[in-house]
Amino acid sequence: MTAFFSALPLTSRFVSFEGIDGAGKTTHIYAAADFLRQQGAEVILTREPGGTPLGEKLRELLLQDAMTPETEALLMYAARQEHLKQVILPALTAGQWVLTDRFNDASFAYQGGGRGLATAQLTWLDAWIVAGHQPACTFLFDLPTSLAAERIERSDRAARDRFELEQSTFHERVRQAYRTRAQENPARFVTIDASADPTEVGATILGAIKAHWQKQTLAS
Amino acid sequence: MTAFFSALPLTSRFVSFEGIDGAGKTTHIYAAADFLRQQGAEVILTREPGGTPLGEKLRELLLQDAMTPETEALLMYAARQEHLKQVILPALTAGQWVLTDRFNDASFAYQGGGRGLATAQLTWLDAWIVAGHQPACTFLFDLPTSLAAERIERSDRAARDRFELEQSTFHERVRQAYRTRAQENPARFVTIDASADPTEVGATILGAIKAHWQKQTLAS
Ligand SMILES: Nc1ncnc2c1ncn2[C@@H]1O[C@H](COP(=O)(O)OP(=O)(O)O)[C@@H](O)[C@H]1O
Ligand SMILES: Nc1ncnc2c1ncn2[C@@H]1O[C@H](COP(=O)(O)OP(=O)(O)O)[C@@H](O)[C@H]1O
Ligand SMILES: [Mg+2]
Ligand SMILES: [Mg+2]
Repeated sequence: MTAFFSALPLTSRFVSFEGIDGAGKTTHIYAAADFLRQQGAEVILTREPGGTPLGEKLRELLLQDAMTPETEALLMYAARQEHLKQVILPALTAGQWVLTDRFNDASFAYQGGGRGLATAQLTWLDAWIVAGHQPACTFLFDLPTSLAAERIERSDRAARDRFELEQSTFHERVRQAYRTRAQENPARFVTIDASADPTEVGATILGAIKAHWQKQTLAS
Repeated sequence: MTAFFSALPLTSRFVSFEGIDGAGKTTHIYAAADFLRQQGAEVILTREPGGTPLGEKLRELLLQDAMTPETEALLMYAARQEHLKQVILPALTAGQWVLTDRFNDASFAYQGGGRGLATAQLTWLDAWIVAGHQPACTFLFDLPTSLAAERIERSDRAARDRFELEQSTFHERVRQAYRTRAQENPARFVTIDASADPTEVGATILGAIKAHWQKQTLAS
């Protein structure tokens, strides 16, 4: 590992990729991992809901079974607790990078904005389960919901899940809640114009990763 | 339905059976249901964790998969939310009786007493998810953990689950937490000496059910 990445606080190696379906998270998380590995870093790629054997079983239920918004939030935070304890914190403690395809902000966007759960309940679950283990950097892939829908339409994805089957007004509320979350956490969020072409999005992310870590290294 | 059972508040037809494994809950819940049906009542027998299709899937995970105490509590309350919304509240609204083999107090006993989660967290989940829909009457089957263990040993139960495999100190903490919960809620709890023989336990429960509802009918 190069000196470039040393001496960072524990959670500085923790990066989340957020945004609605079709925004480009999965496409770009691999490029970010490749860049970090070229710097000599050990990188773990993971996702939510999921990331552990129990978490992946909960993911199946969350994506397929009917449930109330409260149940959805409880299962998301159950999967997140396992993800943090079994995967994320051990990896960070071992000095590895953790890049996750969605994390805590997704609950504020989907269960909060999308399903209408009160922020107070999510804030309480966040304080109890995430307990301050926020990512050092969160990329928000922001784009119009209609464009995201077109991309999904064009791709050869399997059958739609419970979230993908929601109407455009649901995804619009999710997008707005993500933007609000970014505004409230300006030091952590990097908002990406995900409607740009992939080369441009990729360059923005790699630039932001470099700038972010350089800033942190200088500060520490 | 006889006049004996009319004019009760909604949750008066909601009865929970609580206590450690081997206490006699399953044995006696059927006798209580038979008694109520003889009075002309419609009775639903249910259990926790479980009681709904999603709840039964969560039960499987809870009984078999390793997880943190926080995850255990979140999954219990997720199953409870579905149980309340899909089964318990619709049945009570339709005037039916609901007898449940464990409910909310079990989380204070198992996740609180047994696993050591703080009461404050459970109280918050209780306020959010159960939201005051407490049973009108809770039978606590209380007995020494060694006697409960002997009964389980003698019975032809299938393979032990995660809770049954815990040591006796765990079950002792669960028992004590149940007793504390009963002391804190004297109007709702009826504590049964579950070490007595089945005829005596059954008579105590039927007597308590009669007395409980007569008292409520007179009060209303
Ligand atoms: N910047 C982009 N411009 C056009 N299409 C893109 C862009 N980024 C991703 N895509 C395509 O859009 C679809 C969804 O991208 P994906 O990375 O799976 O999004 P997400 O993981 O956020 O749901 C894929 O078919 C992908 O190839
Ligand atoms: N009062 C009692 N005295 C002796 N054995 C009992 C008594 N009540 C139940 N049992 C036996 O103990 C075992 C556990 O009873 P069960 O009703 O399944 O308890 P629980 O549902 O609380 O785990 C069963 O084999 C049952 O027949
Ligand atoms: Mg994806
Ligand atoms: Mg039983």
